[in-house]
This record gives sequence, C-alpha cells and structure tokens, in this order.
Amino acid sequence: MAHNVIVGQSGGPTAVINASLAGVFSKARELGADRIYGMINGIEGLLNGKYCDLEEKITSKEDLSVLCQTPSSFLGSCRFKLPEPEAGNEIYDKLFNILAELEIEVFVYIGGNDSMDTIKKLSKYAGLIGSTIKFMGAPKTIDNDLAVTDHTPGFGSAAKYIATVIKEIIRDSYVYNLKSVTVVEIMGRNAGWLTGASVLAKGTDCPGPDLIYLPEVPFDMDNFVAKVKKLTEEKGNVVVAVSEGVTLADGRNICEIDGEIEGLDAFGHKILSGAASFLAKYLAKNLGVKTRAIELNTPQRAASHIASLTDVQEAFMTGAFAVQGGFSGKTGEMAIICRNEGEYKSYADSFDINKIANEVKQVPIEWICEDGTYVTDEFVSYVLPLIQGEPQLIYKNGLPAHLSL
Amino acid sequence: MAHNVIVGQSGGPTAVINASLAGVFSKARELGADRIYGMINGIEGLLNGKYCDLEEKITSKEDLSVLCQTPSSFLGSCRFKLPEPEAGNEIYDKLFNILAELEIEVFVYIGGNDSMDTIKKLSKYAGLIGSTIKFMGAPKTIDNDLAVTDHTPGFGSAAKYIATVIKEIIRDSYVYNLKSVTVVEIMGRNAGWLTGASVLAKGTDCPGPDLIYLPEVPFDMDNFVAKVKKLTEEKGNVVVAVSEGVTLADGRNICEIDGEIEGLDAFGHKILSGAASFLAKYLAKNLGVKTRAIELNTPQRAASHIASLTDVQEAFMTGAFAVQGGFSGKTGEMAIICRNEGEYKSYADSFDINKIANEVKQVPIEWICEDGTYVTDEFVSYVLPLIQGEPQLIYKNGLPAHLSL
Repeated sequence: MAHNVIVGQSGGPTAVINASLAGVFSKARELGADRIYGMINGIEGLLNGKYCDLEEKITSKEDLSVLCQTPSSFLGSCRFKLPEPEAGNEIYDKLFNILAELEIEVFVYIGGNDSMDTIKKLSKYAGLIGSTIKFMGAPKTIDNDLAVTDHTPGFGSAAKYIATVIKEIIRDSYVYNLKSVTVVEIMGRNAGWLTGASVLAKGTDCPGPDLIYLPEVPFDMDNFVAKVKKLTEEKGNVVVAVSEGVTLADGRNICEIDGEIEGLDAFGHKILSGAASFLAKYLAKNLGVKTRAIELNTPQRAASHIASLTDVQEAFMTGAFAVQGGFSGKTGEMAIICRNEGEYKSYADSFDINKIANEVKQVPIEWICEDGTYVTDEFVSYVLPLIQGEPQLIYKNGLPAHLSL
Repeated sequence: MAHNVIVGQSGGPTAVINASLAGVFSKARELGADRIYGMINGIEGLLNGKYCDLEEKITSKEDLSVLCQTPSSFLGSCRFKLPEPEAGNEIYDKLFNILAELEIEVFVYIGGNDSMDTIKKLSKYAGLIGSTIKFMGAPKTIDNDLAVTDHTPGFGSAAKYIATVIKEIIRDSYVYNLKSVTVVEIMGRNAGWLTGASVLAKGTDCPGPDLIYLPEVPFDMDNFVAKVKKLTEEKGNVVVAVSEGVTLADGRNICEIDGEIEGLDAFGHKILSGAASFLAKYLAKNLGVKTRAIELNTPQRAASHIASLTDVQEAFMTGAFAVQGGFSGKTGEMAIICRNEGEYKSYADSFDINKIANEVKQVPIEWICEDGTYVTDEFVSYVLPLIQGEPQLIYKNGLPAHLSL
C-alpha cells in the first residue's frame, strides 16, 4: 500500500496559504510519502478528476521559497458545500473512489470555516463506510475567526498589511491643513479581528485611527456622527477604521440603510460592500466636511509583499503538522496554533474538527472599549506578536516572484 | 550675510517626497548652509509664519534614513495658487519680507506642476524687485506628467506598488474556476503613466492585465464591452486596468455618464471618482458576469513600504541638485532627471522652469497599442528600470518606522 497524500486549498485565499501548502509538501516528503497530489480547485476540481503531482510542480528549493511568497491559492480554490454524509451518497462515493484509485493515506484540506465543514463531513463519511483515509484540516483565513486555534495563518499578514497601509494613509491624511474625515473599510464580515488590527498603526510615530468599529458591537449612526463631529472640531483630521460587517442594532448592515444587498454567496452569506463609501457620503452630507472612503479590498488577503514572517512560519508549521497528524493516525482534526504564556512563542497541535467547523470566533467583548469605538491594550498584546518579522523576498524584474502551477 | 536655505513641500504627496527633502537637507549641510528652514504646509504656512529649523527635527543619521522611508510630506503640504507676480503685490511683499527676515539665500520647493508654477512666479517676482534669492524646484509627482525631466521622483515607487498589487490581484482573480471581471482603477487624471505601469505585472509568472486603458486615448464603451465579452468567453477571468481619467470621445469622463462630478479642486481640476465601480456595474449589467471594482486609492502615493530604491535615490539626488543649483547661482529652474543611453543610469541636471510649469507630459501616443487597449514594449523598457531595487527599511513594532515633525 502506497503512502500517498493529497492536499487541497479552499475558500478565499490569503497571503500565506501557499506557505501551508509548502509545509504539507515538505513534511510529507520528509515522512516518506510516495506521491504528493494536489487537488486543482479543491474537492470540486477533484470530483472532476483535476489533480496534479506536486513533485512535478515544486522541483527545487527556490520553487519552495517562491511558493511561500506566492499569494492566492497555488492549486486554485473552490466554494463547494458537501451534502450531509450518508452512506451511498453519490458525491461521496465518487470522491472516495477517486481517493482509493490514488491510494491516498492522508487527505489535507487547507481552508477556513467552510472548508473545515468539508473535513468534518469527509471524516464522518469515512467512519460510516469504514475507510482508513485520514482527513486533516490546516487552518487558513485572514478573518481569524476559527475556533480553538489561538489565531489563524493568514491573519498576521493581513493585519500587517492593514496596519502598514493605515499608518501610511493616516500620514497622508494629515498632509493638508484642512478638516477632513477618512473612512477606511476593512474585511471581516462577522469578526472584527482585522479591523481591530488597524490599532497597530498607533505608536510614537503615528496617532493611529481615531475610531475603530467592529461588527461585534451594534453600530449607532447618531453616536458615530456626533463623535466624528467632535473630533473634527478638536483635531481637524479624523481617520475611522470600519469593518465591512458593522451592523445596526436591528441587525441590518449599515450599507443596507441605503439600499439592497448585492446577493448571497454559495454558503448563503450576504455579499456586502460599500460601508466606507456609505459612511463617507453620510458624513459629508451631515457635517459638511471633506470626506474620503478607502476600501482596502483584495490586497488584504493577497499582499504577500508585506507578509509577516511569523505568519509565514506558522502557516508552514500548521500545514506540516496536519500531514504529520494524518500519518500518525489522526483524522477529523484541524492543526491549531497554540501560544506560550509569557514571551511570544507558538507551537502546533491538533484538535477535534467537530468543535471547530461552522463556529465563529469573534473578538471578545472585553477587548472592545466600552463605547464600542476602539479596542483595548489586551487586543494589542494579542495581535502585536503576529505581525513581527519580514520574509526575505525573492524579486524578479523589480517585483516579488510568484510560483505558477 | 547668512547662507540660509528654506525648503517646502507642496501638492499631493508621494512615497519618496521626503527623500527629496533629505537630499535638500544633506546637500545644504554639506555646502555649509548656516540654517536650513522647513516651511510648514508650504508657502501657505510660511505666509502665516509657520516654519521650523530642520536641524532640530532631523538630529541623527537614523532620523535621515527614517525620513527617506516616511511617506506623505514630512513638512505638510498646501494647494495654494499665487497670483500673477506684480511689483507691490501684497502676498509677494509679505512672502519676500519673511524670506528677507530669515536671510534666505536659496528657496527650494518640492512639488509637481502646480508647485512649479509657484517657483516660476516667485523667481519672476524676484527679478521684478531685484531680489537675489534663488528659487529652485525639485520635481515630485506620482503621475510622471512633468515636462523635460525623463521621469519624476515618486513615479517609480507608485509604479512598483501598482505592479506589485496588480500582480497579487491577478493571482487572486484566478483562484476560482469561474468567469469574472476585475476592474482596477489607477490614479493619473491626465496622463496614463501609472495605469500603463500595470503592464509590469506581466511576466513568466503572471499573465498581466488583459486590457489597459489610458486617458490619452478616447474610451469607447461599446468596444470595451465587446472586448471584455470576448475575453471572458476565451479565458474566463479578465483583469482590466483603467485610469481614473479615461474620457469618452466627447470629452466627458466615463463616470460622468452616470451622474455629476463631485466638484472642482483649488486649481479648477475636476474631482473624479468611480471609474472602476462604474465600469464593473456596467459590465455586470450588460454581460451578466461576476465583476468587482478595486480602486487602488491613496496607497499609490503613500506606499513607501514597497518603494523603489532607484526612485528613493533619484528623489534624494534631485533635492540635492536643486539646492546645489541655488547655491551656485541658478534660479527659476527645476532639477531634472536625465537618462543615459544604453544600460539604465540616471543623473541630475536642471532646466528653465518656464518650459516646465503648467505643461503636462502624457504617454507618447506611439507607446500605446493601436486599438488603445495596451501599451507597447517601448513603454515597458522606459518604466522597468524605475521600479528596480528595494530600500532596507527600518521596522518598529512590525511596521515601517516614520519620522514625525
């Protein structure tokens, strides 16, 4: 029986999702895997027979380094929701036949909440049919909203990008001697980790954002306008960091005040957009000040050019741990990151996927200031270690090099 | 008589405008300047008596290094249009009195088109009243639209940021196996240099943008929709780079198709916004494909975290050359960058401000492909050297450090 591994990537990409892939690949090789397959476009692609032999794609040490600095899923991604596992189900049958043909011993899926739902279902189905394939998850999400793990790979780099550009934007906003309000919109539909990370811009060389609004606390428009008014009068320039997911007390997203939402995605999540743009226009109309909206947008999950070295290393570590766990007989678990007490140091472990899949870890309410407009020092202590260090990037023609499939 | 220098920064900032300031400061010191003053918020601030002694603000070699990596104008900026110079004019009188009090020998203004208009007028006024103060300009603009100089400091770093994030965005856009169109909006109201620089993303590891629209060529909506339709059918994912300033054949900006412009700035330029958002919605409606709009926004002029080393060094060089020119008796000139034939190498010179102020250098029409949807290899050869090299950044708490006034 061959010791074969298959690895896939799923959900929205991050700046370091390929460092996790590199971790799976390196560790699988070290542990003597015979073949290391990559699913192309996740299980959706695999169901259509799309996979590759990773040893043909990663052929040198430099390839592996470039892979680690390549943003977005190297293997492509999917958003595919498996049905509930039932013996005899057609999709599961097809999938397990493919895995049997490839003589897979360990199946690793790198992804966020929805992808961990996939691991949960696959391991459950394996139990139902008595398959010995090990199904392991490796965490990935810029949103940092996975349960159990101290934090998720992808979050630190996104936080570093956000804090870096907000620091630059704040400096830019102070350049004219004029009253102005800049509203910066940050990703994170249900959890304010990324928006909170904007606080890291604050230091002896930067005042930081003036107000920070997370989705964990209901947003009060009147209070917001009053606060901004007071700040513009006191200090002229005001910079507000706002989560794309902030909602009113009645549960509506703020951009729903003005119109319709754009639709639902494959998992039934609302597609939101325009919180900053909406707020900037609202302030301009109600306060008569110059405003601008900046949506940080896709670079939050793709800016590997300013990745956190800590994050890259931890992404690699969790990928390696997931495949190692599978080889040692674990299944239905996700690799997690644990944090030491005292000076920051992290290590990997793994945990029951049933306690992780479909859970959302929000920012603890006690880490949000009482009036809901800033985060506490505890929040800063938690996030600050995760953005430390810079990888030595390989440049090609003046730009960070990427590895292509 | 003291050998005093005063330096100011004006107009929109860049990632390297403070490297030019560092160049002025270092060279002035080297040349034995007695005092080096900084205008706070340009001549507008100076008219209100706002200036500082730069030797109190830049007190170490590390300060100077951090200054070079600090985005946005260290001294603050203004958008202030001087009246036509006439002997006896109140504003000029006031300004020249302040300069006389400070015993200024050389006045350096770091800025773009509108700032060079200021240098032109001040040197003319000095001639009218027989003042011996030397007025020199140092170029600065991400737009690269200043005449005579081969290129402008600030452009290379903006180009490097744009190419880097577009490369990341393109990779992100290919992650799902779906048809989609991403429209990326890039700064440059009248000149397409920055939008054209998106071509640099193209290489063996990236297909680059599929279509590039500059403001130099009239935009044809029907042709655009047809091209995108064909591309989505052929290849699925399409990425379009579009200048914020693209205009229809009748002279309207594309975002004016749908509504009103937001107003005029102090110099009478239209405030534009929303080209990408408009086009993305238009395509979604007309082609029924998934679209997204990404406005690269402020980081284009502020992302010193991914500055071009070439650009930083040239910014420093032009600042130094401007103050040196003033000390050697030049006035009414702007420092320029000249390019050697053959292998890229640049050097500084200076040139009559009257030939520069208020001129706009657009992308030569022969560097734009015939159908107006891409740039040529000549364009690439011109831009590529300007994004080379990365400065060794000084980090503090995980983020690039900045120097504050």
